[in-house]
Amino acid sequence: MADKKVKFICSKSDDLAKWYTDVCLKAELMSYAKTKGFIVYRPDGYSLWEEVQSYLDKRFKALGARNVYMPTLIPTSLLNKEKDFVKGFAPECALVTQGGGKDLTETMVVRPTSECLFSDHFKDIVHSYNDLPVKYNQWCSVVRWEKTTRPFLRGAEFLWQEGHTLHYSKEEAKQFALSILRVYNDLGKDVLAIPFVMGRKPDSEKFAGAEETYTIEALMPDGQALQCGTTHYLGTGFPECFNIRFLDKDNQLKYPHYTSWGVSTRLLGALIMVHGDDEGLVLPPRVAPIQSVIIPIRMETSAEVRQACHTLCHALEEKGVRVLLDDSDKTPGWKFSQYEMKGIPLRIEIGPKDLEKGVLSLSIRYSGEKRQIPLERAAEVIPDLLDEIQQGMYKKAYDYLHSHIYPCTTYEEVKDVLSSHKGFCKMMTTGESEDEEKMKAEFSATPRVIPFDEKKFADTDPLSGKECDQVIYYARAY
Amino acid sequence: MADKKVKFICSKSDDLAKWYTDVCLKAELMSYAKTKGFIVYRPDGYSLWEEVQSYLDKRFKALGARNVYMPTLIPTSLLNKEKDFVKGFAPECALVTQGGGKDLTETMVVRPTSECLFSDHFKDIVHSYNDLPVKYNQWCSVVRWEKTTRPFLRGAEFLWQEGHTLHYSKEEAKQFALSILRVYNDLGKDVLAIPFVMGRKPDSEKFAGAEETYTIEALMPDGQALQCGTTHYLGTGFPECFNIRFLDKDNQLKYPHYTSWGVSTRLLGALIMVHGDDEGLVLPPRVAPIQSVIIPIRMETSAEVRQACHTLCHALEEKGVRVLLDDSDKTPGWKFSQYEMKGIPLRIEIGPKDLEKGVLSLSIRYSGEKRQIPLERAAEVIPDLLDEIQQGMYKKAYDYLHSHIYPCTTYEEVKDVLSSHKGFCKMMTTGESEDEEKMKAEFSATPRVIPFDEKKFADTDPLSGKECDQVIYYARAY
Repeated sequence: MADKKVKFICSKSDDLAKWYTDVCLKAELMSYAKTKGFIVYRPDGYSLWEEVQSYLDKRFKALGARNVYMPTLIPTSLLNKEKDFVKGFAPECALVTQGGGKDLTETMVVRPTSECLFSDHFKDIVHSYNDLPVKYNQWCSVVRWEKTTRPFLRGAEFLWQEGHTLHYSKEEAKQFALSILRVYNDLGKDVLAIPFVMGRKPDSEKFAGAEETYTIEALMPDGQALQCGTTHYLGTGFPECFNIRFLDKDNQLKYPHYTSWGVSTRLLGALIMVHGDDEGLVLPPRVAPIQSVIIPIRMETSAEVRQACHTLCHALEEKGVRVLLDDSDKTPGWKFSQYEMKGIPLRIEIGPKDLEKGVLSLSIRYSGEKRQIPLERAAEVIPDLLDEIQQGMYKKAYDYLHSHIYPCTTYEEVKDVLSSHKGFCKMMTTGESEDEEKMKAEFSATPRVIPFDEKKFADTDPLSGKECDQVIYYARAY
Repeated sequence: MADKKVKFICSKSDDLAKWYTDVCLKAELMSYAKTKGFIVYRPDGYSLWEEVQSYLDKRFKALGARNVYMPTLIPTSLLNKEKDFVKGFAPECALVTQGGGKDLTETMVVRPTSECLFSDHFKDIVHSYNDLPVKYNQWCSVVRWEKTTRPFLRGAEFLWQEGHTLHYSKEEAKQFALSILRVYNDLGKDVLAIPFVMGRKPDSEKFAGAEETYTIEALMPDGQALQCGTTHYLGTGFPECFNIRFLDKDNQLKYPHYTSWGVSTRLLGALIMVHGDDEGLVLPPRVAPIQSVIIPIRMETSAEVRQACHTLCHALEEKGVRVLLDDSDKTPGWKFSQYEMKGIPLRIEIGPKDLEKGVLSLSIRYSGEKRQIPLERAAEVIPDLLDEIQQGMYKKAYDYLHSHIYPCTTYEEVKDVLSSHKGFCKMMTTGESEDEEKMKAEFSATPRVIPFDEKKFADTDPLSGKECDQVIYYARAY
């Protein structure tokens, strides 16, 4: 019965790209806006972002960050101050040339990121070592004029948070950038049920103006990597450029050390791709706007069924479960496929036969597993079951990721992995740019991440045969 | 001692405009951005907005509204669809003419408000009476190219929420717009300690495209009114223009009824002006990022003082009080004026003499009142005291508002009130445009609000002498 409803979306394994777009639209996460390249974040999509915000905002504040809001428009002269930075962003900018019916004397840029605004503000508020550290975060949208767009993954506008901090020392700044990276990693584990590879970016993949870029990388079902969040140690480049200086205890004027960091609604793209299946979206309970749906069976002929559903619904609400009782007159079959499409983690069915036996039937969205539990214990069991689902989904994704990291010590192995297998090619590298160019030309693969805590497992770079000590993960990437 | 520190701000009664800007800057709520007409919302300013958001978001959701996010850029063709609407907004628009290094084929507008984006989306999602009501809200910023700007009160960009809903009937839509108005009014009472006059706008002051505009109006210390939030019943104009139709039970295609509603960071301007004094900002506890500051006296010579401060700080935190212990080596005098400037509702001092007596000294920011309370009961008493302060501040503002509403039945009274008194001129009106023009020309006053629940108190309009039944409040306004 459910099959008929989901014929509208294609199979995930047949055509991941089409499946992905189908799910985004049919699960009502977004729709295309009249503004070309822009999307409408619909309630079921936006609420996923609200859960991400709620988790991160608390974690950031616990690390001492406070929220601020900077202008949405940046004068070009300000954007142009930091040369490396502007090179990275200028080609993607949207330009405001008129305001209030007049040509502007200076063109403005719709913010693509706000380092230069923060820097210009920091120079006014930082004077002494006492003023450090400064830890600011901003929730906003940014605009980048992308040629090809995909919902959540790449768009002309996305929602994000951008953190900007100043620190006394290089070491403190780096440590802070790393502590935020761990928060992002925890978000994956605790909320999104997505495991990441944590590490730093090779020089060629660093953020414009960064001395170090740290990253969390996820693996998509087609074996391509998706960069899901980055934190940057920006050194003293912005402070030097914007003349942000503090008087130190030794009476010397010094430059503070800058970090910036962000995750965006791209995370929703990862969420959809990592967990979704041929029936549609699959949501981990922690991020699901509705965690459990109750569907009455033969309700029209049984007042007891209706009553039992309402009683359970209230009992679950009291336990803090986000629950929906759908007692509309649509058929159970329609409801099954509708809520499967919407990715609701747990379906609860109650029918006359169940009631006779004093049980209810559960269906776990991600595994397809069915269970019967005693009705009287339901409100007690279900919150724990939602935790179990959260952990089960994380474990499933974790196993997938770690079974798709292939250590390669020879060129043939590299070739084999990147042409026939899905996943990360783990290899030793000298980090030379010829290697990167070769990998790009032959396999369309880029160096994704120099992972933390990976031990040397061979002596030479499989491309050049040169001796080296560094492990790197290559993959094709979004 | 404190006096010296606050010499930096001018007296509120001497020059309200200068005082206001001084407080915004010195209390570190905002600073001017390099982008002309735009401001930086600093942490202590932005956190006030976060409290407003947190309160309203819960209330909106309780009324069934869900959050969405629409593009920040609007194609001009879409903005131009509704004629009344575009007339209202076109002169204030910022235009994007280039993107990704190329001239755009169609100019985009940085959103000044999003009715047309919502309408364009609604036409895709509303088909049947079953799809109604639709209740959406969006938290975002908007850009309006204002010539003269003042922090929070009027700026090229402000933060706001904009709600957009569709309803089956006119009556349901109007009732919904009114229920949101009551939420705004509650925000004033529960959070901001600002009383409003609630009512509807006369035709001349309605939102572009609205059939009815409802408003909350506050009174500033200079006797000028400040419109603090509006909700609109927009009729079926947008649905007709964008072809949003639903199939009703009777098999007829019909247009749904539209409401929109918003409050903005302008509320922070009202908060500053209504409560602030010559020492700086004064915050109601409910909205204050720090509700109470503990200042140790002679801490350097008394380990007991330091210990008592820490103990109290933890005890208050456990009670959910947002408390700051400032045990820095700055002088108590510096701290007193600093936290007075910042508007912290309650100051707690603990010194060796207090400890001997087993008491602590409290200073209530808004009233200047000093109290001593037993140290051992502090954690119990202080949360209640914060509630008392919240209510006291509301009452003070309420009394001010209601003692500045002057009923006028003759032209001389109108003239007297609007030229010598501060406040609202309450009068009967025919609502004719000649009256409005006269009031504007002679007194720079505009019709602010037709208040709910006001009884007819005279038979004639004091300007024209014509018979009429409607009460109206006139005032000069921001």
